[in-house]
Amino acid sequence: MKQDTGVVISSRARLARNVRNVAFPEWAGEEECVKLCGELREALGNVSLLRGSLFLDMGTLDPVDKEVLKERHLISNELAERGKGSALAVTSDEGIAVMVNEEDHLRLQAISPGLNIADVWEKVNIVDSELDRKLDFAFSDRLGYLAACPSNVGTGLRVSVMMHLSGLRLMNEIEPVIKGMNRIGVAVRGLLGEGTEAYGNMFQVSNQSTLGETEQGIIDALMKIVSEVATHEQNARARLMEGKKIHILDQIGRACGILMRAMVMSSREAIDLLSILRLGIDIGIVKNLTVSRINETILLTQPGHLQKFVGKVLSPQERDEARARIVRQKLGDISI
Amino acid sequence: MKQDTGVVISSRARLARNVRNVAFPEWAGEEECVKLCGELREALGNVSLLRGSLFLDMGTLDPVDKEVLKERHLISNELAERGKGSALAVTSDEGIAVMVNEEDHLRLQAISPGLNIADVWEKVNIVDSELDRKLDFAFSDRLGYLAACPSNVGTGLRVSVMMHLSGLRLMNEIEPVIKGMNRIGVAVRGLLGEGTEAYGNMFQVSNQSTLGETEQGIIDALMKIVSEVATHEQNARARLMEGKKIHILDQIGRACGILMRAMVMSSREAIDLLSILRLGIDIGIVKNLTVSRINETILLTQPGHLQKFVGKVLSPQERDEARARIVRQKLGDISI
Repeated sequence: MKQDTGVVISSRARLARNVRNVAFPEWAGEEECVKLCGELREALGNVSLLRGSLFLDMGTLDPVDKEVLKERHLISNELAERGKGSALAVTSDEGIAVMVNEEDHLRLQAISPGLNIADVWEKVNIVDSELDRKLDFAFSDRLGYLAACPSNVGTGLRVSVMMHLSGLRLMNEIEPVIKGMNRIGVAVRGLLGEGTEAYGNMFQVSNQSTLGETEQGIIDALMKIVSEVATHEQNARARLMEGKKIHILDQIGRACGILMRAMVMSSREAIDLLSILRLGIDIGIVKNLTVSRINETILLTQPGHLQKFVGKVLSPQERDEARARIVRQKLGDISI
Repeated sequence: MKQDTGVVISSRARLARNVRNVAFPEWAGEEECVKLCGELREALGNVSLLRGSLFLDMGTLDPVDKEVLKERHLISNELAERGKGSALAVTSDEGIAVMVNEEDHLRLQAISPGLNIADVWEKVNIVDSELDRKLDFAFSDRLGYLAACPSNVGTGLRVSVMMHLSGLRLMNEIEPVIKGMNRIGVAVRGLLGEGTEAYGNMFQVSNQSTLGETEQGIIDALMKIVSEVATHEQNARARLMEGKKIHILDQIGRACGILMRAMVMSSREAIDLLSILRLGIDIGIVKNLTVSRINETILLTQPGHLQKFVGKVLSPQERDEARARIVRQKLGDISI
């Protein structure tokens, strides 16, 4: 099932894998991590889908580059905080990203825009199968794959989608939907992962547990829920356009006005306003902008990308000024 | 002394007068009020400065027209709530407005744009002198002119100026300035008179008491304070442009953006944002708008004027939509 309604921003699948008889990174010493990292690098180099990947060592990467990778959802905060012996392997299209020595020895991830869970699962499964031929993964017949955190034991699979739920938010219906998902074992997080707020009404929806279910079972269950939530969101948008059209037009108009004229802007405000524009594009009100322009601008407004774009390290105040300037340039004159 | 810095929006002088041996309006019956109103109308008709005035009876005026007069500061809430036997005499340029049977039998007022206290005092003094020849005012040798409220006994004179104190507000220095004025016996009120908030950073500054001082003493004291506050405001603006220029530009930019793009707007928000634009004009940042266009727009966004302009009675929601539309039309494309 593919669905391009603007509600599902991206899909992601990841597998947690560990090498048998090597300590989990949290308990291993630096030397052990560095040794394993070298071996894993070699194994990853032979995986067909990873041909031509970059291999980035956390011990030598500068802080701004780590920020950029975090903002692109290629690495976690936890990996960024690690040094020598931890690394990222990433394909040039960023469709596959493998974290080495994060919480587990390997976190295999595949990412795709839109609702493509089957596709990302297939990719990550191929990478896993190829690696399995070279590496001896820690596996128990009773539990499945072992992992540093019990929540990842079993399939080690987490599938997630990033959803843009502006309609539900504007209709004040987001809370019950999130609570409903939590009740049936679905985790809902903010844009920037675990423990973060839902900037820009963007929510990351994923399975909670990976134990006692098959991979296909996990995928089917999440697909079902995501489809239901997407339908709720579409309904909310339709009802907004019916009963509260002027308020939607007002929100979108104000977002345009501020984005086009502000001289100082926080990263949070930029994401929130750009998210409203995104809704405006989805429902056909904002005409001369594309969703990809919005996505690009959202990325550029985040601290790491912003500093990379400007070419130097900036103070928070300088970032807020640069952000407002870049937003004005990127969006130009928005017509509604 | 005349000063056109944009800080003082308008000046006003008013005298409270009552006819001897006639009950104050609050205690008089309707019949007595109507009788006196007729006599006062005749007397006012002979005053040279009031030649060609409109005479509007509160008993027949419709509610929207009363709103309009209130918004133009020509009548008080109290007069608007009265009916037959209370009235307003107003010159076509709105420079002189006499409330008949408000709290007192007569409230003679002269109003002028900018800082013109001497001028408005002179006008109101002339009207008073001419009336004094026809009417027998309640006067005590010991107390001066008598009035319904003790605070108006004495000269019956209140002089006030409307000040635009955005600079002090943005520098967070408005509170001590207001407290300082209160301490030395100066009343500070919001835009819409007694008990109202300071919409749009506009403050009405006036003498508190009218007893035990000469008219010239009251005027001189207020002039001195107004000049001091105006200087404080100018200093605040200069410091803002020095140290916080980007924040001023940001505030003005955001105000422009919202005013140009919002589809729903409350009266309070309109005044607040237009007040920021006004500051932008005063300090030379907003180029293609005039202060008089801002003033006109502020008036038009108030409920009475808005309904008069649209030509029908509107619900609050309809007003908020009409207001946003009118603001967009009036301001056009603001360039900074």
